[in-house]
Amino acid sequence: MVSNDIKEKYFPPEWAFLFHGHRCPFMPIGYRMGMIAMEYLQIEREKDHGFFVFPELGEGHPQTCLIDGIQASTSATYGKVLISKTFWGKLAAVFYHPDKGAVRISLLPDFIDEMGKFEFFSYRKRGIEPSQIPDGVVNEVIDWVFTLSNDSIYKIQDMPGYNFTPIKGSFARDKCEICGEYVFERYIRIKNGKKVCIPCSGYAD
Amino acid sequence: MVSNDIKEKYFPPEWAFLFHGHRCPFMPIGYRMGMIAMEYLQIEREKDHGFFVFPELGEGHPQTCLIDGIQASTSATYGKVLISKTFWGKLAAVFYHPDKGAVRISLLPDFIDEMGKFEFFSYRKRGIEPSQIPDGVVNEVIDWVFTLSNDSIYKIQDMPGYNFTPIKGSFARDKCEICGEYVFERYIRIKNGKKVCIPCSGYAD
Repeated sequence: MVSNDIKEKYFPPEWAFLFHGHRCPFMPIGYRMGMIAMEYLQIEREKDHGFFVFPELGEGHPQTCLIDGIQASTSATYGKVLISKTFWGKLAAVFYHPDKGAVRISLLPDFIDEMGKFEFFSYRKRGIEPSQIPDGVVNEVIDWVFTLSNDSIYKIQDMPGYNFTPIKGSFARDKCEICGEYVFERYIRIKNGKKVCIPCSGYAD
Repeated sequence: MVSNDIKEKYFPPEWAFLFHGHRCPFMPIGYRMGMIAMEYLQIEREKDHGFFVFPELGEGHPQTCLIDGIQASTSATYGKVLISKTFWGKLAAVFYHPDKGAVRISLLPDFIDEMGKFEFFSYRKRGIEPSQIPDGVVNEVIDWVFTLSNDSIYKIQDMPGYNFTPIKGSFARDKCEICGEYVFERYIRIKNGKKVCIPCSGYAD
């Protein structure tokens, strides 16, 4: 497969960049990761609440942008409670569908090393935000990523026996007896005999 | 302001529905919440990493979809580590910009009660997923929401003195001495004298 085909198949639509807020290589890398996972599991973009993604990233480090690419390509979104970081600081994610199984996709260390040589990262390491980096510098690394085959970027591992059971939801809710705002039942606490929300309770959680 | 103006100003673009995966009232309600917050704080969509949102929702309850609307309108995304739930089970969010201050926007209990009378919710409570609910039933409640003024839906509270300090990030990383994959430094653990990633360590975190 030549790179034009790769770009046509895996390059994010313009709205995904608007959603993300800036152009950078990691959102597209994540978008493509999500596409590959859906191909592997033979599923489509998740309309509702039946597909789960566990990115192995955390906080206080760069390159988490790939999570936005995953959200954009799979619709396994934070708002639908379908994506949850493991806080392991790794550039990988597990994709799980109850009927189709699970696959883990990680970025190959050699790919990360090669990518790190691009000028984009010298800007980032000097603390320059992505939107402030010259377009040519940003596009250079993004374009390079889409000259590479999937096998040059990603390690794809089947995860036999992987399992996850989402929390059973409930519509039950009540008003906090102090602030009067609605609270879903699992988060109601009792304080001085009153049903209250967590901030009104003064409890930590 | 008549509803046509409201719709023009606050209705999500089609890509936001594609991103979210389905049509429902809560994504648009969250989108509009994000727009109102940005107006209040006099800021634009966040290109980089300087604006933070703390939705007061949790898990195991419905209506979290509003978080995807907030992500879509503000670009304060999960992938950029700019949005983090408090797990309080409340239909509200705090929006914080270090230079502009903070605002809390919540859904009025009376609005929630009125909205709950729409047929859409009788489908949802029977466990029918949003993508399976007839278009007319979905659009009825969405259209109704955009006949209402902001003041009929949202409570807007200034949050003087609100503060949040994001974690200082680092690009430092090393390879796990067991699996060979890269790990960002804050997540490296020591096991039998080796630098390893959390899953290879066997530690919980």
